[in-house]
Amino acid sequence: MIVTAKLGFSAAHRLHNPNFDAEWNRQKYDKCDNAGGHGHNYVIEVSVSGDIDPQTGMVIDLTKLKDIIRRELLDHVDHRNLNSDVPFLGGVIPTAENLAVSFWKRLSPAIDEGALCQIVLHETEKNSVVYRGE
Amino acid sequence: MIVTAKLGFSAAHRLHNPNFDAEWNRQKYDKCDNAGGHGHNYVIEVSVSGDIDPQTGMVIDLTKLKDIIRRELLDHVDHRNLNSDVPFLGGVIPTAENLAVSFWKRLSPAIDEGALCQIVLHETEKNSVVYRGE
Amino acid sequence: MIVTAKLGFSAAHRLHNPNFDAEWNRQKYDKCDNAGGHGHNYVIEVSVSGDIDPQTGMVIDLTKLKDIIRRELLDHVDHRNLNSDVPFLGGVIPTAENLAVSFWKRLSPAIDEGALCQIVLHETEKNSVVYRGE
Amino acid sequence: MIVTAKLGFSAAHRLHNPNFDAEWNRQKYDKCDNAGGHGHNYVIEVSVSGDIDPQTGMVIDLTKLKDIIRRELLDHVDHRNLNSDVPFLGGVIPTAENLAVSFWKRLSPAIDEGALCQIVLHETEKNSVVYRGE
Amino acid sequence: MIVTAKLGFSAAHRLHNPNFDAEWNRQKYDKCDNAGGHGHNYVIEVSVSGDIDPQTGMVIDLTKLKDIIRRELLDHVDHRNLNSDVPFLGGVIPTAENLAVSFWKRLSPAIDEGALCQIVLHETEKNSVVYRGE
Amino acid sequence: MIVTAKLGFSAAHRLHNPNFDAEWNRQKYDKCDNAGGHGHNYVIEVSVSGDIDPQTGMVIDLTKLKDIIRRELLDHVDHRNLNSDVPFLGGVIPTAENLAVSFWKRLSPAIDEGALCQIVLHETEKNSVVYRGE
Repeated sequence: MIVTAKLGFSAAHRLHNPNFDAEWNRQKYDKCDNAGGHGHNYVIEVSVSGDIDPQTGMVIDLTKLKDIIRRELLDHVDHRNLNSDVPFLGGVIPTAENLAVSFWKRLSPAIDEGALCQIVLHETEKNSVVYRGE
Repeated sequence: MIVTAKLGFSAAHRLHNPNFDAEWNRQKYDKCDNAGGHGHNYVIEVSVSGDIDPQTGMVIDLTKLKDIIRRELLDHVDHRNLNSDVPFLGGVIPTAENLAVSFWKRLSPAIDEGALCQIVLHETEKNSVVYRGE
Repeated sequence: MIVTAKLGFSAAHRLHNPNFDAEWNRQKYDKCDNAGGHGHNYVIEVSVSGDIDPQTGMVIDLTKLKDIIRRELLDHVDHRNLNSDVPFLGGVIPTAENLAVSFWKRLSPAIDEGALCQIVLHETEKNSVVYRGE
Repeated sequence: MIVTAKLGFSAAHRLHNPNFDAEWNRQKYDKCDNAGGHGHNYVIEVSVSGDIDPQTGMVIDLTKLKDIIRRELLDHVDHRNLNSDVPFLGGVIPTAENLAVSFWKRLSPAIDEGALCQIVLHETEKNSVVYRGE
Repeated sequence: MIVTAKLGFSAAHRLHNPNFDAEWNRQKYDKCDNAGGHGHNYVIEVSVSGDIDPQTGMVIDLTKLKDIIRRELLDHVDHRNLNSDVPFLGGVIPTAENLAVSFWKRLSPAIDEGALCQIVLHETEKNSVVYRGE
Repeated sequence: MIVTAKLGFSAAHRLHNPNFDAEWNRQKYDKCDNAGGHGHNYVIEVSVSGDIDPQTGMVIDLTKLKDIIRRELLDHVDHRNLNSDVPFLGGVIPTAENLAVSFWKRLSPAIDEGALCQIVLHETEKNSVVYRGE
């Protein structure tokens, strides 16, 4: 049984690899490399798998799961600049792929009922990534 | 090949385990334990896997699948109270997890082309569960 | 200029007029008259009209507007039974139309920047009402 | 008859009035005042009113209207920082209200069939504004 | 008070004015003039205004309103070709604008509680029209 | 890591197997067999799996993936009749299942970073199919 909580946050980011020159970055990231950054209303779906507790009928209380997501993730990234404002994203190029991996590392040890089994991160309605751990 | 039908129903429910006292229930279910109940516009996605019939180009006619879902599920739960009005949910605490398992038991034997492979049940836009059988 | 905040709540209700007999109620409300009730994930859109404050660039801070909506409405109706649990809905048949009028009466005096100009209440994705005051 | 085109763009912004001190800005804009900015997937709905051309059956060709919106607005704001990168937003605090007014001024003279009658700008799924001109 | 029912139908159409030559049609309608046609999942929102009946708490029973829409419109246009299969659209170029006017003429006399006040017709998520009668 | 691009196209189709008579086709496809066809706003989700390139932080540039989808699929099916206008669908009954398989054959060899791992094709909001290759 898998339970999923879906939440959102709004953040700015810029795709840029400082180890390469402007031409390389423009070629790889095009308009996503804009120096002033741009931003998104990200939507994150966090899935936890486990057995149903026969007493509660739940794998994990979704209210509790959402509290964990807010405390571990959203309070740190919502209304922030993902390149400069988030300590646990230091040195990370904030592509959706890299964000999903970083979010997995933050969330996985914080979930103590069931086990984190999937993170879906939507950057826009058209672009999303799925990460299920290594 | 997997085909999926997505349908909705509106129902009332209350999360409460009568084997425990009020304090336990309030702690576990908080506002979901409200004595007068509350309700949701549930959305259910029913997925059937199988081979494509070369004559029809279909795994199962989705119109037929939706008729099965309406006859076996929606006619029994739509505009009902899930705690008191649905015989096949007798004794079940109507969490999304338990509903998904009960719905699987109802639907699985009724689908005679392809095989039921997944039920996704959305309680709200933020809360959902996935069940793929045991 | 009009600004709109969109929020949701989950509640149970039953459509039933106690001044009429069972036959009348069944004829008027059909399955919505189910004695055990049913429920919805309601979505409410609250619109406030006014001039833009040149200092802030806002008509009303939407965070503040959402706080008002939560305090005046959602804290009273979310995860409740609209027939029995909400004092300010006493004696009101909880149709979407009547709810919109009752919500207007609660919200209108509580909004002190700009003026409440429209409430849209969605009972389901298919059913909604618009109320703009008398 | 009114026709509406709905399009999106992703941008960073910060709400901050440089004529006031940090305390004022924090009080008015709270987390929207974050120095590194944040961002949104904005959705804009542009409505044009007019008579139906009996030859084409259209008020304005929506493909043409969308080309105008892209050329006048989206090419300038998509994947940009609304505080620093957009000449026609110079000196404007980029609240949704102010953006809607600035967008109106850009679009209104560029629409040569029918007349611009409404702009709806969604900052998030929860927050939106409507502007219909002065 | 305004109540709105939202329903969908799937249909094929082609935009082509037989009074003009191929070049004119290609210029005006571009890919929408494709000889084999194309199609959409149309969404229609039908709004009725009126007073709340104090006995029922409703302007018009939305179940009844949806029955009218199905009988007068959807049964005639769903899974049809709007150019060739619908008698009441004979001679009409099936743009969203013209469809909205034709639908108004069908629906308006069929609604006997409250009065039809608005039809919104969505051709796609990006393209829609609003018609409020003459 | 899986990345997904979501795009749409509008097309007409008719479900009909010319190897069988009218009665068989009516029984199998009912209203989907309408001779003049009908149509949909299809939504396609294309997923590619692979490792994250440490230099770019991406599996595949989603802008590039969307260009491939447009060039290989959408330019051929958007605003077309799937029964008559698309060479690579010749002889294919255009059910969602068959379309997903045909689209897989077109897209799979065209994706040169990562590997195509899933196609989801939505015919309507209620009907969809998933194909993950043989």
